[in-house]
Formats: sequence, C-alpha cells, structure tokens
Amino acid sequence: MDERAALGLLSDELEGAGDDAAVVDGLVVTTDMLHERTDFPDGTTRYTAGWRAVGASLSDVAAMGAPATAAVAAYAAPTFDRDELLAFVRGARDVCDRVDAEYVGGDLDGHDEFTVSTTAIGRTDDPVLRSGARPGDVVCVTGTLGRSAAALRLFERGRVDRANDLFQFEPRIAAGRTLAARASAMMDSSDGLARSLHQLAEAGDCGFAIESGRIPIDDGLRDVSDGDDALELATTFGEDFELVATLPEAAVPALREATDASLSVIGSVRERADGITMDGETLADRGYTHGD
Amino acid sequence: MDERAALGLLSDELEGAGDDAAVVDGLVVTTDMLHERTDFPDGTTRYTAGWRAVGASLSDVAAMGAPATAAVAAYAAPTFDRDELLAFVRGARDVCDRVDAEYVGGDLDGHDEFTVSTTAIGRTDDPVLRSGARPGDVVCVTGTLGRSAAALRLFERGRVDRANDLFQFEPRIAAGRTLAARASAMMDSSDGLARSLHQLAEAGDCGFAIESGRIPIDDGLRDVSDGDDALELATTFGEDFELVATLPEAAVPALREATDASLSVIGSVRERADGITMDGETLADRGYTHGD
Repeated sequence: MDERAALGLLSDELEGAGDDAAVVDGLVVTTDMLHERTDFPDGTTRYTAGWRAVGASLSDVAAMGAPATAAVAAYAAPTFDRDELLAFVRGARDVCDRVDAEYVGGDLDGHDEFTVSTTAIGRTDDPVLRSGARPGDVVCVTGTLGRSAAALRLFERGRVDRANDLFQFEPRIAAGRTLAARASAMMDSSDGLARSLHQLAEAGDCGFAIESGRIPIDDGLRDVSDGDDALELATTFGEDFELVATLPEAAVPALREATDASLSVIGSVRERADGITMDGETLADRGYTHGD
Repeated sequence: MDERAALGLLSDELEGAGDDAAVVDGLVVTTDMLHERTDFPDGTTRYTAGWRAVGASLSDVAAMGAPATAAVAAYAAPTFDRDELLAFVRGARDVCDRVDAEYVGGDLDGHDEFTVSTTAIGRTDDPVLRSGARPGDVVCVTGTLGRSAAALRLFERGRVDRANDLFQFEPRIAAGRTLAARASAMMDSSDGLARSLHQLAEAGDCGFAIESGRIPIDDGLRDVSDGDDALELATTFGEDFELVATLPEAAVPALREATDASLSVIGSVRERADGITMDGETLADRGYTHGD
C-alpha cells in the first residue's frame, strides 16, 4: 500500500482524520514527520529545518482557520551537536514567535537518519473544513506558489543561502483566521495546488475551473525556470504551505484588505460533473505524496 | 554530546522544558519518538507498538496530574502494510480509550526504520511539577516496577505473547489526577526509579531515603530473574510508566483508598545533604537514558 492509500485507509478508520488537522473538544491538533532523505536537501541548515518542520504543522492549524497555541518537536539524529541543536531550536522558536505560538520543546532520540516530528496545537470552536465549497464561490490562494520548488533547484546548484531563505516560510495563521470568517472550505497547499484542488473537490463534492494566468507564481521560481516549467512546478510541486480557500466572490475585496498576505483569485468552484480544469483542460491529480 | 547532556542543554534553553510535559496556557503537551532498534524488540506487535508509544506520552500527561484530552501519532515505516497499520491504530485507540482520551490519528512517513512519534495533550491549570518535594514527605510509586524489564527477557526467549502483554501498560491518568490533590512533586518512572529519584532531588533540592524491601517488584519480573537481579532491574531498568510522587504521610491512607492503582510507600524525602540512599547506601544515578 503506498502512503496515499494508507492515508485513505486511516481517514476511513479514524473519525476526524482526513482534514489538515483533527479537532477535538475545541483543540486543533496536527502532527508531521519529516526526514533528511526526502525533506531536507543537502545544504539545509538546522535552523531552516526547525523553522520548516514546525512551520509545516503550524500551516495545518492555519488551514483550519484557528490561532496557534503551541508546538513541540521530537528531534532525532545520529549525534547531538550543540550548535546544530541550538540552531534547530532557534528556528523552531522563531517560526512560533512569528505566529504568536509558544515553542515548548520536545524529545530527543538517537536515530540513523536526521528525522523531525512536530505537533502543533490551536484552538477553535468553528474550524474551516476541506468540505463546504459551493459552486459559484471563487478559489483563492494566499502568497505565492513555487518557493519550495525554487529552493530545491537552488540547493541542487549549491546556492544554499538563498535556498535556505526560500525554504523558510510564513505559516498563514493570521491569514487563516481572517479568511475563516467567510471561507466555505480551506486547506493548505502542502501537496501542491493540483492535489489540493482534487482533495477539496472530493471533500466538497464539487469541481473547479482554474485560470493558469491568475496563479501567483513566486519570483524565485521564475528566476530558476522558464514559463511552462514554472507553471507546472507552481501547480504540482507543493510543499508551499499557502492556503487554498473557497469564498463568496463578494467577500474578496474586504478580505483582501484585511489579510496580511496577498490573496489571488485563481478560478471558481463548479459542479462536480464539470470536473477540475485549468484553462478548460482537465487538471490531473498529481503532485507530491506525503503525509499532512 | 550524549542524549542526556543534550536534554540538559534544551532544558536550559527552553522555558517549561525539563518536566514530564510542558504546560502552556492551561494545556499540557508532551511528545516522544520511539523506534524499532531501541524501543520495539523483535516480536513486538504493531498493536503493542501503538499502545505503548501513545501510552508513553499519556504517561507524561499523567505525571503532571492532568486529565488527557487527545493523542496523535506519526507512523513511519519502510512499507505500509494494511494489517500492521490497522493494528497500530487499534492499539493507539485502545490505550486512549482506557484513559478517556481521543486518538485523532496523525501522519504517515516512508522511512527505513519503523519509527513512531507521539504527542499527547491534557488540560490543567494546576500541574504537579518535579520540583516541590519537602523533607518529611513520603515517596510513593503506583503499580509495580519491572514489567518492561521482564518483557524484554521474554522477548529474548521467544515468549512473545506474554511479553506483548507486559509491554502494554495502563497510563496512570486516573491515579495522577487523584494524587495531584496532595502530591508535592511527581514524575513518571520511564527512566527508572533511581534516575527518577535523582531528577526529583535535583528539581526539589532534596534527598531521598528508600527501603528496598518496600519497592513493589512486578511478579512478571520475579518469574524471570532472581532476587538481587530483580531488585536491580526494578530500580534501574525503567520504561515502566508508573508514577513516582512525594506526599505528606498523613495523606497516604485516603489516597490509597481513592487511587485505582496500588500505591506503595517506598521511603521518605530527606534534606539534600543526606543524599539519595537505598537501605542506607548511596543509590547511583543510573538507568535508561532516553528522551521523555
């Protein structure tokens, strides 16, 4: 069974699984595990790893429209180097500070491969789910897509300083809270825009019509790839931790004003039978498969 | 830097670290990572792994005297076998059910070694810390010590059914809540009794005088080892997830009545200068070193 099938199995098995985070008794809880081989390319600093790992979990809290309360991390490595460990903690703490959450430490474990497991906790009595998109709503994304794809290319080219910068991101806690007031459905883009749309469509029994020209492609990605390639990566690479939300069109101007991140309308919600299209062509369900 | 030194570094670095769990804004949060090579001997079923990994985090919540609200787990393995995954989830859910917490799923990750990271969350406005033991208090432990040491011997001898039974344990949430009303200090025994006493002494600036004859050695351990060996393992092996608490002596009878686990008085709190002794001899700070 591949990871995606296994996640499907779990979401059948567990009530509350299958969204970006679980909600129990007013608490939003989400956990992620990342490891060196697949998640931290050569050149990723431990500061960036701390920021990114904890940020990924905070992004899941943001996707529920909740404020973040706290985060923890378990840090596993073959050896514990003082400077690496302190850099990791600094990164974890800085990303928490950015969203007014408290980083409260965690666990250490001796392990062959550098591995990080993070949990973030938020609070809300009124979470925004993946289900709920209504035909006629518009689809928006926060920020830009393709930062992580760009970072990966830069890591490959040895431009590690710039790559590390791009690999750190702002968890969209504040934007998520603002959007929550009007969003009919929301999730983060960690599996890529295309896969996120398929997941929102599945959960909400709807379709989408996306216009490629309106997708906010990150400048960093344009710098390292040509046009078609940039669009493909921005749509499918994922790992970007922006929010994808559906909203009544009339709500967009006020939300755009109130949201601290840029907000791009990239298309509209359609009936399920209309499928998921980009510029009128079917948009395949492809992207990065990992846990969320 | 070894794991213990690294934990010391983190507890200097992070406010709230250094107890069994962190407390932030009325939430108790704790995370643990376990992996096959060091934590799940050959023969450990995935059901037991789910129970034990989630139980270890619930035990940290219990040690703060808090009720448990929810737990999550990240499950990493080279392949995702349907039956193994469902067994893991069943174990995780059963241990949560046992303490009225909700198991809300988690993450999956492809990984060379079977690795589990768990987080448990509880709620309290009045946590019991490791600090606070007062000379004159008695020291108590819940349940029995040595179950996991016995299980390990049984795994080695191929008696896996009995070993799996012993490897599952009752997280002492209910007992922790009862003891919290009067306990001056509390932690769990996951690093072994000897190390727990050293940690309570360090946090509370006190000493301890323990009587070996009062240590509740598990029958399962007596079955697989002789007397001296059993006492040594019960004192230092750890991984038992019982509570070690200090209490006013006068509170013991009522608490013993009210606690759903057995409660053994094993000695008393002394001044720091008296050191930590068992039967009048210095009790060394040795045991299992791992994260908590």
